[in-house]
Amino acid sequence: MVKVLYPFKITGLGSYLPPRIQTSKELSKLINKSEDWIVNRTGVIERRISEIDVDEMGAIAAKEAIGTKDNPDLIINASGVPKQTIPDTSVFIQKELGFNEIPSFSVHSTCLSFLTAIKVASSFLQIKLYKKILIVSTDRGTRGRNFKEPESAALLGDAAAAVYLESSNNKSGLISFSMNTFPEGTDLTEVRGGGTNLHPQDDITRIDDNLFSMNGPRVYRMARQKVHDLIKQDLRENRLNFDDINLLIPHQASGMAVKAYSKYGGFDSKKVVNIIDKTGNCVAASIPLALVTAFKQDKINDGNILYLIGTGAGLSIGSCLIKF
Amino acid sequence: MVKVLYPFKITGLGSYLPPRIQTSKELSKLINKSEDWIVNRTGVIERRISEIDVDEMGAIAAKEAIGTKDNPDLIINASGVPKQTIPDTSVFIQKELGFNEIPSFSVHSTCLSFLTAIKVASSFLQIKLYKKILIVSTDRGTRGRNFKEPESAALLGDAAAAVYLESSNNKSGLISFSMNTFPEGTDLTEVRGGGTNLHPQDDITRIDDNLFSMNGPRVYRMARQKVHDLIKQDLRENRLNFDDINLLIPHQASGMAVKAYSKYGGFDSKKVVNIIDKTGNCVAASIPLALVTAFKQDKINDGNILYLIGTGAGLSIGSCLIKF
Repeated sequence: MVKVLYPFKITGLGSYLPPRIQTSKELSKLINKSEDWIVNRTGVIERRISEIDVDEMGAIAAKEAIGTKDNPDLIINASGVPKQTIPDTSVFIQKELGFNEIPSFSVHSTCLSFLTAIKVASSFLQIKLYKKILIVSTDRGTRGRNFKEPESAALLGDAAAAVYLESSNNKSGLISFSMNTFPEGTDLTEVRGGGTNLHPQDDITRIDDNLFSMNGPRVYRMARQKVHDLIKQDLRENRLNFDDINLLIPHQASGMAVKAYSKYGGFDSKKVVNIIDKTGNCVAASIPLALVTAFKQDKINDGNILYLIGTGAGLSIGSCLIKF
Repeated sequence: MVKVLYPFKITGLGSYLPPRIQTSKELSKLINKSEDWIVNRTGVIERRISEIDVDEMGAIAAKEAIGTKDNPDLIINASGVPKQTIPDTSVFIQKELGFNEIPSFSVHSTCLSFLTAIKVASSFLQIKLYKKILIVSTDRGTRGRNFKEPESAALLGDAAAAVYLESSNNKSGLISFSMNTFPEGTDLTEVRGGGTNLHPQDDITRIDDNLFSMNGPRVYRMARQKVHDLIKQDLRENRLNFDDINLLIPHQASGMAVKAYSKYGGFDSKKVVNIIDKTGNCVAASIPLALVTAFKQDKINDGNILYLIGTGAGLSIGSCLIKF
């Protein structure tokens, strides 16, 4: 019997996929690669392009997650790229929701931001600092595509997802959380601009510095063994085996990365949520979008053991085991 | 007897003030205002200008905070503006420290980021998720000064500060935490660029959009009553009176804002840490810098009740009561 360390209940789930679809065939003209090249290389057949900004996207997902429940008493934005440098995006999401006087802030660990927010939120619920927490992940990665870097440009898509967490009895919640950061990977996934390093006003800042850059093959090589070790460690420490996991919900980093969980990771491919063909890599929104999508497809039932796992720029790897 | 809700011990404190001083006399030529105008308007006589980036600044403060202690098992970056958009700054700080395999992420609530990090860290310590947490606030606000907006340009200064938090007995730690966010204030303190809203590559993005903009008088008017109410609420809920607070450590928003705590807030001015004349408003680094400066000046003793409080872009207001 698995032990829930930090109880909570996910009582609301919401998502937003922008209506505009960009197929890999359409994209092929922009990045000068064939449709086959894109699909083979990234696993992405189509992605969504948002015409509204991250706060509006996040608010749509949040409204669905909140439903008819009370307003949350805390809002955590857990996204990869902000709406603007200051204030942090949580305030804009709150504004879009029409709320006021709800404490809000952001956490940031790029594609693992949602897992970090789950860790923070479950801690707050555990010590009774808050009782109803809204987590919103919203990313508009297509705004930062560099068409001169075809692989990363073909990967990115836009989406938002949100969950509403409440205090609970001991039956559901966080079983375990793991994270590790390896700074040798800082230059493998970057948007070098946007801060004090290469300020937009600096003469030396080039257009490319403000766009997303990823060395996918090097990230994959660096991450594969580390993620493999993390899986073994998580299962061992929680006395679980592969069969105990009802659903593996990975970051949708690339088609190859998602497939690696079944090809090398030991999981039945039917248990691995794979949405990258239709959504692309939605940065921090990928993990919660995969969660919400699986939930909406009736793939998640009360009492299920969910295993959320992924990599983030840094390089960081992280996971959390949740009893739903 | 005041009750410590979430025990921890601050076992290390560090700070970094860049060696280069820019006096208000020097600055007066750049913003076309007299030295007297600057000092009267902002309370800032001189500020520091960093020639190294935020990660290096933060690492210097962090090294001092860590001292001869073990490496932390978590690093939280709690700053206002990042080094770059991706990865988050915590990874770069870890890299500068020469560490590896330490989980790290950022929290962001602009000038209140340090208080948010204290809340997160004390929760983690409480539930024993981590035992030794390094919090680093590092900001290089002078990189974003808009010399056409003389008041905000005159306010900003560069600094970093860090604290090392450990699990503890019940004698010291967090007494209470309060935060509230009022999205009507989103446009009062902004850096509009740097994200998906006004992307650096967009034709409509102007240079000013990437620079700091603050309507100081409107922030002050909006915040004063709210901060006043927060003080009354914090004291009442924790059954404390003004005399019980050994030291008030406010965000150094402006000379007028710091003075308001004694002029209107009910605190003896000797108890209010005021460093803005020599440092300016150092964004998220202001509160921890004031804390570390007071500590180094032997103004803080074991068992003291410290009251950290301030405002952040959003507009957010926040506070925490700490038994040192």
